[in-house]
Amino acid sequence: MSLRSVAKVLAFLLLVTSAFLVLPALVALLYREPDWRQFLLAAAGGAALGGGGLLVLRDAPDLRIREGFAVVAGSWLMVGLLGAVPTWLSGQIPAFTDAAFESISGFTTTGASILTDIEGRSHATLFWRALTHWLGGMGIVVLAVAILPLLGVGGMQLFRAEVPGPTAERLTPRIRETAKLLWGVYVLLTALEVAALMLAGMGPFDAVCHSFATMATGGFSNHDASVGGYASPAVEWILIVFMLLAGTNFSLHYLALTGRVRSYGRDEEFRFYLLIIAGVTAALTALLLAEGFYGSAQATVRHALFQTVSILTTTGFGTADYLAWPPFAHAVLLMLMAVGGCAGSTGGGIKVVRLLILLKTAKLELRRMLHPRAVFTLWFNNRAVAPALQTNVLGFFLLFMVVYATGVLVLTAGGRDLVTSIGATAATLGNIGPGLGLVGPTGNYATLLDWEKWLLMAFMLIGRLELFTVLVLFLPGAWRRS
Amino acid sequence: MSLRSVAKVLAFLLLVTSAFLVLPALVALLYREPDWRQFLLAAAGGAALGGGGLLVLRDAPDLRIREGFAVVAGSWLMVGLLGAVPTWLSGQIPAFTDAAFESISGFTTTGASILTDIEGRSHATLFWRALTHWLGGMGIVVLAVAILPLLGVGGMQLFRAEVPGPTAERLTPRIRETAKLLWGVYVLLTALEVAALMLAGMGPFDAVCHSFATMATGGFSNHDASVGGYASPAVEWILIVFMLLAGTNFSLHYLALTGRVRSYGRDEEFRFYLLIIAGVTAALTALLLAEGFYGSAQATVRHALFQTVSILTTTGFGTADYLAWPPFAHAVLLMLMAVGGCAGSTGGGIKVVRLLILLKTAKLELRRMLHPRAVFTLWFNNRAVAPALQTNVLGFFLLFMVVYATGVLVLTAGGRDLVTSIGATAATLGNIGPGLGLVGPTGNYATLLDWEKWLLMAFMLIGRLELFTVLVLFLPGAWRRS
Repeated sequence: MSLRSVAKVLAFLLLVTSAFLVLPALVALLYREPDWRQFLLAAAGGAALGGGGLLVLRDAPDLRIREGFAVVAGSWLMVGLLGAVPTWLSGQIPAFTDAAFESISGFTTTGASILTDIEGRSHATLFWRALTHWLGGMGIVVLAVAILPLLGVGGMQLFRAEVPGPTAERLTPRIRETAKLLWGVYVLLTALEVAALMLAGMGPFDAVCHSFATMATGGFSNHDASVGGYASPAVEWILIVFMLLAGTNFSLHYLALTGRVRSYGRDEEFRFYLLIIAGVTAALTALLLAEGFYGSAQATVRHALFQTVSILTTTGFGTADYLAWPPFAHAVLLMLMAVGGCAGSTGGGIKVVRLLILLKTAKLELRRMLHPRAVFTLWFNNRAVAPALQTNVLGFFLLFMVVYATGVLVLTAGGRDLVTSIGATAATLGNIGPGLGLVGPTGNYATLLDWEKWLLMAFMLIGRLELFTVLVLFLPGAWRRS
Repeated sequence: MSLRSVAKVLAFLLLVTSAFLVLPALVALLYREPDWRQFLLAAAGGAALGGGGLLVLRDAPDLRIREGFAVVAGSWLMVGLLGAVPTWLSGQIPAFTDAAFESISGFTTTGASILTDIEGRSHATLFWRALTHWLGGMGIVVLAVAILPLLGVGGMQLFRAEVPGPTAERLTPRIRETAKLLWGVYVLLTALEVAALMLAGMGPFDAVCHSFATMATGGFSNHDASVGGYASPAVEWILIVFMLLAGTNFSLHYLALTGRVRSYGRDEEFRFYLLIIAGVTAALTALLLAEGFYGSAQATVRHALFQTVSILTTTGFGTADYLAWPPFAHAVLLMLMAVGGCAGSTGGGIKVVRLLILLKTAKLELRRMLHPRAVFTLWFNNRAVAPALQTNVLGFFLLFMVVYATGVLVLTAGGRDLVTSIGATAATLGNIGPGLGLVGPTGNYATLLDWEKWLLMAFMLIGRLELFTVLVLFLPGAWRRS
């Protein structure tokens, strides 16, 4: 591996991120708050480091596929740490561990928070939190659709020939073009959401921040009571729609915007995604109605649907304290936490398409019992899935379980209770945000110990970068010079 | 499927089980207890039904492979229900659901109990409980080594060519011969354990019952406080050794008894089994010592080792209330519950060999990231594992997860709390016995609702019969006439 090539790309990304740090500085100036200095300072420091790096490394060799893993993992870590600097310097988040947690949680679009008095933070801090989401989501879309398939990772491989969307190989030969097309969709949807939220009566600052958090399936809100703080059904319905869109494969949106609206219905993953949402919402609604949780049926459906979509898409916005719901809701939501959004969306987790392939594999193996000599083919979107790809999906699931189990073991070994340990691991590895127990929807991550926070940051990165990308760096072979 | 052929085999098994019902009747007569009548009545009824069935069905066609699934699932269900009749008739277990739960828990070697006053039961009832374990274990050994491979199910396929043990194809061409060899090992080990327990001061009745429960990895004890009731370190060490042996592939014991003792060390699954036990025991010991749980280091090691072996082998004997241990112990034991014993043992669960294949698959997929064009082979016991077999193992794991998730969802939907639901599903599907929460080591299954008990009985059967065998019967194709 050529570390110089890796460093060159990281230096470039540092420069880009530094440019974005100017935006919260402008927000601070707009609201006449003093922390524009720290944002500009961080921007200047990042730019100096990035620019200097680019100068020094200008003749480093071009990247090869194998170095892609280090670039992907390194960039999210580096950008996450840079993002912690301004809020830490300004004292808005006094401890560096906390500032790093919030920033990495932002860039990984997790939305797990250590802030206890969100409404008391400066506008620049809140805006930067939302912007880390939005930039992270932008990175993820490109990563999932254009970069990971090149590295041999990611559910999007399953769509290679079927969805004639803007994948790196097909629509445009270069990552840059793919990125531009997807970002166009991303920016357009964000703008639509800002407009819709403002029409529903939300102020422009909150509308922008929440739209950033929605489209990235992040989940940071400007209120301690999250979205529930608005007590506005209209706002909740708008967020439901845009969370649902953010958890969908962006290639499908691209196709729809270019006139091929039927692509949604033809995509097996999207149909299964809607099926899960409909099924879980119906079950939760029935349960909550039977137990008389919310006054009206309309409010019950809204809360059930909001929480289902919020957790399945790994956004993590809250309108209700689901820990107060009956145990069945805990079980369902815990399972949804592992599923996540569609491939090629900004959602985290195992991804709907992988779950579908896993269920099909189980069913196929069962049928094979009856017909031991028959040759079975696993179909997805009317195409045969190659056995190697099927094994890759299974391997992903197994690695997910291994990391999950490790998380629960390490946290409980430190003395943390079982439910919080399960909830915190699921919520960070799946990039959801709120978990169960202490870190549930009404609690947060503030009271955890520093080492626990760093461990959970590692899970956010591992989960966000589809496991393989990070874990492969722990193999000795990854660092060998070729 | 020829239902007549299936019924013929079931009638034969009914006849055999009825013969064994005479034994507890003799125990009752020996202890001058009145319930010999009900055991003889059940024996007579079973014999009449079985004998009559055999007469009527004597010209039914021979079994074919496809009917094997129905025979296996049907026999455990039928024998389990017959076993419930005498204790229900005698009023020792007044409700039929409870009697069926105890009997099916016995024959599936689960050891989950609804009895709250075990010491107040008749000797015949206690003996029959233990005997259901022992007969169930006997059935499982033959099922795992000789029958399931023919049906294309089971971890033992992984050993086909490697362990030159008494598999159906190799050592002896017929199931009957294989069964005899393995039963010889089983009877010998049981006799050794009875002798050892009596030397340690246990009375002959308890020694026989506990030996039956150990060798079957069942877990029924004659005491409300389980094995802890003896407060005898010697008894506990003996049980540790025999639980360990019962959780080992019986083919290895056979080889050792015929002079090939080194087979243990050469078997990768056995090495991994010991590694898990050593690792978990060390971790639990360190934790319990640090928290000052038991007076001496010796007692701490013993409790940690006992509980690790008891749960990993899916026996479920108790010497300590592990729910009082710190959360890390809960997490570890919950994970062990899913693992289970070695293939070809009487232990339940996913099986150690499958876990090993799963971990190897995950690691291989990770390495494939670095070398996308390389061809990787999965090795087990120095032999390449065929991709189809690998997919079968993965399919088994996925089905296990699906049934597990279904169990938790259904139980919580009925209002049961999350921890009890997880514990009860894991403990019955894995054929362990005690779970977490209400059904933990100091609680039992008595207070559950009737429908919950029947659901858990289904999980015991599904888990015991390696999932595929039962679940395949839900495919429409299984019932088609060929």
